[in-house]
Amino acid sequence: MRSVSVIGIGETKMGKLQDRTLHDLIREAGTKAISDAGIDKDKIEALYMGNFNSSYLCLQSHTGALASEVLGLGTIPTVRTEGACASGSLAFRQALIAVAAGVYDIVLVGGVEKMTHRSTEEVTTGIAGAADVDFEVNVGSTFPSIFAMIANRYAYEYSDQREAMARCAVQNHANAMLNPDAQMRKEITMEQVLAAAPIASPLTIFDCSLVTDGSAFVVVAATDIAKKIDPLRCIEVVGSGHAGDTLTAASKQSLTTMRVTVEAAKQAYAMAGLAPKDINLAEVHDCFTITQIITGEDLGFFEKGRGGAGVLAGETARTGRIPINVSGGLKAKGHPIGATGLSQIYEVVTQLRGEAGDRQLANIRHGLTHNIGGTAATCTVHILKGRE
Amino acid sequence: MRSVSVIGIGETKMGKLQDRTLHDLIREAGTKAISDAGIDKDKIEALYMGNFNSSYLCLQSHTGALASEVLGLGTIPTVRTEGACASGSLAFRQALIAVAAGVYDIVLVGGVEKMTHRSTEEVTTGIAGAADVDFEVNVGSTFPSIFAMIANRYAYEYSDQREAMARCAVQNHANAMLNPDAQMRKEITMEQVLAAAPIASPLTIFDCSLVTDGSAFVVVAATDIAKKIDPLRCIEVVGSGHAGDTLTAASKQSLTTMRVTVEAAKQAYAMAGLAPKDINLAEVHDCFTITQIITGEDLGFFEKGRGGAGVLAGETARTGRIPINVSGGLKAKGHPIGATGLSQIYEVVTQLRGEAGDRQLANIRHGLTHNIGGTAATCTVHILKGRE
Repeated sequence: MRSVSVIGIGETKMGKLQDRTLHDLIREAGTKAISDAGIDKDKIEALYMGNFNSSYLCLQSHTGALASEVLGLGTIPTVRTEGACASGSLAFRQALIAVAAGVYDIVLVGGVEKMTHRSTEEVTTGIAGAADVDFEVNVGSTFPSIFAMIANRYAYEYSDQREAMARCAVQNHANAMLNPDAQMRKEITMEQVLAAAPIASPLTIFDCSLVTDGSAFVVVAATDIAKKIDPLRCIEVVGSGHAGDTLTAASKQSLTTMRVTVEAAKQAYAMAGLAPKDINLAEVHDCFTITQIITGEDLGFFEKGRGGAGVLAGETARTGRIPINVSGGLKAKGHPIGATGLSQIYEVVTQLRGEAGDRQLANIRHGLTHNIGGTAATCTVHILKGRE
Repeated sequence: MRSVSVIGIGETKMGKLQDRTLHDLIREAGTKAISDAGIDKDKIEALYMGNFNSSYLCLQSHTGALASEVLGLGTIPTVRTEGACASGSLAFRQALIAVAAGVYDIVLVGGVEKMTHRSTEEVTTGIAGAADVDFEVNVGSTFPSIFAMIANRYAYEYSDQREAMARCAVQNHANAMLNPDAQMRKEITMEQVLAAAPIASPLTIFDCSLVTDGSAFVVVAATDIAKKIDPLRCIEVVGSGHAGDTLTAASKQSLTTMRVTVEAAKQAYAMAGLAPKDINLAEVHDCFTITQIITGEDLGFFEKGRGGAGVLAGETARTGRIPINVSGGLKAKGHPIGATGLSQIYEVVTQLRGEAGDRQLANIRHGLTHNIGGTAATCTVHILKGRE
């Protein structure tokens, strides 16, 4: 199969964008990505669109065809992918497969979510659809309660992570101060976080990702074509992994090791011929701070049970051994669900190109993205490679 | 790329199945397909799941992961695809690409929809999400009104199709009498249909497809592997096409030629090296009877403007030149939206295997499926080949 590269990226500012429609968000991010790729839009042969739940939140389905019309893409084929919070990276993964296989040469991949116009109860209902509604939601589970259970189980099996979780939140907020697209550009302190009231013990509001409107798009192309378009700005996708696990928390083999992450990472590392030590930055799925800690371990950056200690030691900070979520992550950049996986790609490509401005990291070669859906029931991991 | 074949099929009875959950529907159809394939389920490497709008109708998203858990498929990767009423065939198309590319050898493809537990108003709202909500639905359009406009425009450009539309309905109902899985096993007469009151003139209730609960699954495999499993029952997919068009009716170049169908069919015929005259049966997307008539033309079975005359001449009947919707179609077999594209594959594979019992057609070699989403904004066409 052919190598595939990212040749264009675009995203909206993330946040509470109540004056902007789904159309507006798609138009902005999609147009930016096509423009960034430096191609005429008639070169785009297909569109893969990640969207989690506009069907419920906006009563709008068929978002692939919607995006194609908004962007004026003519008769190209479109498909929406959905896998809860991993919807955006699933679109990316399917696009990679189609281009690698030679079905298409240049493909647009988008993600969008519009959430903040609905009430908290409606947003909770919409998000809860990522779990098993009959066996979890209808008996009282919501995601904060499930991830609180994961945090409690982690404390039981390893050690209490209250302080490390707080540090994740503080660090992600600090990182977001440098990201002009971030929703929550507001510093928080360890004291604030540790003093907050639990919403599902031990999680407080500071441990939870945000409710966000936003969109992100990328253009992918076969690498041989990408190099002809702009050899200096195309970024090769060298690893891709995709795994699943049971939907319900009750059926998991373990709550403290996310085997979707382990398996997807294994595939991506094998494809790339790389090991965790070769990764210079990672955008990971911090739906809750405990997930960021567990993910650091499951991706192989830390030994099992040592992820929190690594965070507290500064190893995941911008200046650390393995910077995690320099964009601000889902916690502070925001979590426009269907767009999140592509916003992660946006950040890693921006960094690998050296175009990250105030938040640019030095000496980076390989970046990783990690996106999960539901209670770690769906996961993709991608590895991108910058220039020599 | 490798050739791909269907090695297993399964579907539920279609209908108003109010005592059955999404889990139940998935379990029945998925288990049947895996059993029909004659493989252990641990041979399945990925699951593509078509679902239109359980997010709204059942508050359940993430149906790929749901189906994997229900069927006990372990850690295989899953992805849900959505493209309105074409959601099921989009899952099939993406699975084909992944197997053809060599990413997986054996893949399960499913589709499900549960609709009848919701009120007519809720079902209408859910389905309307397949159109542009801001620019069509919120200004009063629903699908019956859009397809009524198409029928009226067709009458203006060509000729009135009231009688031919009625014949489509009568014929599809007659066909469904022979299909044990069909929802509407009830004969209707031309007199009944022609006397019915319009719901969106010229369409009456008899011109509309059904609201249906149901599920259909198929197993696909690389043909070299499929032939080792069972050379007598595997059915090769020789053509696949996928196209898009504008989402809104107002932006279409034509209302009476569906260019998604023309383009997707062109791709599928070219891949198969076949022409319309080589096709022996077709399952087409009769969301409304006018669509069945237009589709007969756009697939190349009839000259433009002659599709209705062909129906009235009996050319699409079981005994005709090109039998269309011998399953009963969306009109009488039923239209469990996310499952429809796969139920079409189910019918064509059953026929090509010679396992269709009372409704078996004689002397058939090539079958075609045609599935559209929204106002012909998404379309796939597949061509399957039976044994010599």
